[in-house]
Amino acid sequence: MSVTTPRGFRAAGATAGLKASGRPDVALVVNDGPDHDAAAVFTSNRVAAAPVTWSRTVVADGRVDAVVLNSGGANACTGAPGFQDTHRTAEHVGAALGIAPGDVVVCSTGLIGERLAMDLLLPGVDAAAAALSVDGGPAAAEAIMTTDTVAKTATAERDGWSVGGMAKGAGMLAPALATMLVVVTTDAAVDGASLDDVLRAATAETFDRVDSDGCMSTNDTVVLLASGASGVAVGADELTDAVTRVCADLARQLVADAEGAHHDIAVEVRSAASVDDALEVARSIARNNLVKCAVFGNDPNWGRVLAAVGTTSAAFDPASLDVSMNGVQVCRAGGVGEDRSLVDLTAREVHVVVDLHAGEAAATVWTNDLTHDYVHENSAYST
Amino acid sequence: MSVTTPRGFRAAGATAGLKASGRPDVALVVNDGPDHDAAAVFTSNRVAAAPVTWSRTVVADGRVDAVVLNSGGANACTGAPGFQDTHRTAEHVGAALGIAPGDVVVCSTGLIGERLAMDLLLPGVDAAAAALSVDGGPAAAEAIMTTDTVAKTATAERDGWSVGGMAKGAGMLAPALATMLVVVTTDAAVDGASLDDVLRAATAETFDRVDSDGCMSTNDTVVLLASGASGVAVGADELTDAVTRVCADLARQLVADAEGAHHDIAVEVRSAASVDDALEVARSIARNNLVKCAVFGNDPNWGRVLAAVGTTSAAFDPASLDVSMNGVQVCRAGGVGEDRSLVDLTAREVHVVVDLHAGEAAATVWTNDLTHDYVHENSAYST
Repeated sequence: MSVTTPRGFRAAGATAGLKASGRPDVALVVNDGPDHDAAAVFTSNRVAAAPVTWSRTVVADGRVDAVVLNSGGANACTGAPGFQDTHRTAEHVGAALGIAPGDVVVCSTGLIGERLAMDLLLPGVDAAAAALSVDGGPAAAEAIMTTDTVAKTATAERDGWSVGGMAKGAGMLAPALATMLVVVTTDAAVDGASLDDVLRAATAETFDRVDSDGCMSTNDTVVLLASGASGVAVGADELTDAVTRVCADLARQLVADAEGAHHDIAVEVRSAASVDDALEVARSIARNNLVKCAVFGNDPNWGRVLAAVGTTSAAFDPASLDVSMNGVQVCRAGGVGEDRSLVDLTAREVHVVVDLHAGEAAATVWTNDLTHDYVHENSAYST
Repeated sequence: MSVTTPRGFRAAGATAGLKASGRPDVALVVNDGPDHDAAAVFTSNRVAAAPVTWSRTVVADGRVDAVVLNSGGANACTGAPGFQDTHRTAEHVGAALGIAPGDVVVCSTGLIGERLAMDLLLPGVDAAAAALSVDGGPAAAEAIMTTDTVAKTATAERDGWSVGGMAKGAGMLAPALATMLVVVTTDAAVDGASLDDVLRAATAETFDRVDSDGCMSTNDTVVLLASGASGVAVGADELTDAVTRVCADLARQLVADAEGAHHDIAVEVRSAASVDDALEVARSIARNNLVKCAVFGNDPNWGRVLAAVGTTSAAFDPASLDVSMNGVQVCRAGGVGEDRSLVDLTAREVHVVVDLHAGEAAATVWTNDLTHDYVHENSAYST
């Protein structure tokens, strides 16, 4: 049920014809209230797509009534005409639903540097508006897929209220954020919490710790909508916990469906002097092409892990570093540990644990291996 | 002739048996003087190999009499026993040549995390010492190869003096520096110049601007030796120019022989507010896996170039960015420019030019495409 699991929301997916495949490519998520609280985080890429520029303004007042999303075109690097296309899309949604265009978030994903086919998109918006339903979450999740092989949804059920979400994203995944569009909904009546704080806390520990290929997109958007339709007043901690669970579930699904990946790699850094140190080290390993190629080849090449750690400014003594791969401590005190042939990397999920022996902080970053299929998809598919 | 082109040097290559292939794997370069001036730069990786730790100390007093290099083992992540192996190697060279061990630079390359087979290496050093010759440069260049497919040498001839060099390095190439071992020699009588300044100026504009795969090694070393044997007094500017030419030639050869690469990509950033800005932008593009995959697929995907530019903190207006690929301006003012189908990326050498319209500084970084062969070599070959 995804975004329509919480009460107060309708959603739909429709086929506008933007995708050559003829698959659904327009989604709508509508918040019917009574509350219309919203928060969003966007790509930190300075080359931001037109819909990101538009939606930043929309969400600034904390109210959003609807989110329209299209696949089949990113509307990025399209200049002033591209921004006008986004604006027209919001106005079209506003007219179809009887809401203010300034309360419509717009998200786009697909090819960069090409104008959207507005003659196809706007009728698609009408079709989606006509199909809106309280059961429409799965259809909406399907309509935002690009190279995703599966639709991604998640829910967290609580006592009388819930959180639901949908996501798309399979490449250009790097903090902050991944190339992804995410809509999270809740029917909680937000009680004295800043929805913006809730969303930032949740994304910082989930989407911001996914780094599939080190590449940051121009279109990343995560929107959180609260309808209050459950009538249950929920405080900041409880809401943050539920939203974080949904975001974590979706983030894990993004890694599991990353373009061309054969392994999902959890890089866990322990005993760091600070969380920042742990994240810097984990990201350095997660972005290292030689480490990623080694995992693809089922090679527990801990020397490459150490070489990646050595490029960081984190606090550690090189002679104290420990590295374990899938439970085997292949590197002890910066040197040779247990026999690397004991490591079995054939399973999809791989755990690399680095112990810095420098403090008590820890963090985990998820990444993927670097494979022939990744090279193939990203040299042949033009996104 | 490489490192033995300048007078005052002898060199040799020998086969110790460290490499499974049975190819030569020990090289010696000896400075017979009359001067023994030297400078060196090393990897900035904090996980530095034992030979790097040793050689930093050796070169600190500005005098080096000999450089011994082995392929077939990096002696990295080998702890105190590994450092003792390096020390023993230097002592062995000292005894064989009648020089102080403290004037012997040691370089190693190959697998990380394994001890060197000293019972093979030391007799190999003896064989190399016995083979030393003023014509030995090419043999030395061959003995330092790992996954290199060709030996890399360069020379710059001047009026009565010269500079020669040899390099190895084909993967883990990133500033600063690449995984590379480089020895540069000159018979200039250094006149009032700091050899350290000369070498740092030369490497900053050459090896530091090569970024094949973003991965920094544990063993990188560039040593410059000056014998004064020409009797020609050479000032700082003239010497820097000649050393820079030799380093640029060798750096270009490293890119041309990078593991699995099909394209050599020059990323040129123009009209930047500063050289630092130009370098930050160029490196961001050069390290972007999606850009590198696109070039492999002969796809002039300028949107990915813009997305990489947008992750930097350089001064620019996203609406002013221009991008040309092999002479075709595919992106103009942040949007669609000339037809991308006009771009021909089939040649080995590709030029990407980004104009930031923010100042007058410029810089070029060389990188490679990301290919099936790169993934294959680095998942199957355990370095």
